[in-house]
Amino acid sequence: MRHDLVVLPAGLTTRGDAYTLRRADEGDVATIVALLAADQLGATRDSADDLAPYIAAFRAIHADPAQQLLVATAADGDVVGTMQLTAIPGLARRGALRMQIEAVRVHEAHRSTGLGAAMMRWAIDDARTTGCALVQLTSDKARTEAHRFYERLGFTPSHEGFKLML
Amino acid sequence: MRHDLVVLPAGLTTRGDAYTLRRADEGDVATIVALLAADQLGATRDSADDLAPYIAAFRAIHADPAQQLLVATAADGDVVGTMQLTAIPGLARRGALRMQIEAVRVHEAHRSTGLGAAMMRWAIDDARTTGCALVQLTSDKARTEAHRFYERLGFTPSHEGFKLML
Repeated sequence: MRHDLVVLPAGLTTRGDAYTLRRADEGDVATIVALLAADQLGATRDSADDLAPYIAAFRAIHADPAQQLLVATAADGDVVGTMQLTAIPGLARRGALRMQIEAVRVHEAHRSTGLGAAMMRWAIDDARTTGCALVQLTSDKARTEAHRFYERLGFTPSHEGFKLML
Repeated sequence: MRHDLVVLPAGLTTRGDAYTLRRADEGDVATIVALLAADQLGATRDSADDLAPYIAAFRAIHADPAQQLLVATAADGDVVGTMQLTAIPGLARRGALRMQIEAVRVHEAHRSTGLGAAMMRWAIDDARTTGCALVQLTSDKARTEAHRFYERLGFTPSHEGFKLML
């Protein structure tokens, strides 16, 4: 239902290059996995050698109306960025809907262009449009540059982010 | 679909009293809101004076198969604890499903009984049963006692938790 409110594909305004944000399709999975694996912290966790578990996960994301898996493409159509948005209903804060952002990645050749910030601003606008009361994300404590990036966008590091691996 | 794997109601093992964990129903909403409002940090944000927005949120949670809004009841049937579990599919970590825990509250008269830990252990077992690769939550940096509680349960405060209020 919330998809009706979302206008995609969307042009992203950056300091120079033209990028487009759109929903990921199954053909993008290998490229998204490569973006995850290229990341310093993701390098040991992800690899596009066997796509089967990723395709299965893509289908679960795609089937869930609370999820938006998005990709940013450069002018030539190449996928150079990704993020996943999850709408989470809750009772707290007068029954607030919240938007959670996971797995934000930008290809290293397209950093410092303003693309990441444009993606995040789109996500924040989408959260506002769909009636969310807050946007939340966690970022590994080792990613200090990312922390400054999120603070510049208006996020407050008010919480401890706990993880338990199973 | 995942609900088929979940065995509820479940008895919770604590150091003394007998508690039961079950899915919340609409008749529990006022009590859950009272638990949220009794919390120091939630006191200014939540109130059971007007239940309408909470009932609407409850229905959204209830309709979403990725959500489990749970309550713990004492031997007399009173609701004395609550938590919300969200299953989030993702591509990272070889297409891992993750479980997110939000809005964990225990009535002050039932703290230090082991109830909170028993609720969390149930959530972790449920995450494992449903194939999650990790469990995650954020906790306000002011809640230092809660942080020790989560660390005792095996959680690592590896991430910064960012929030942006809209």
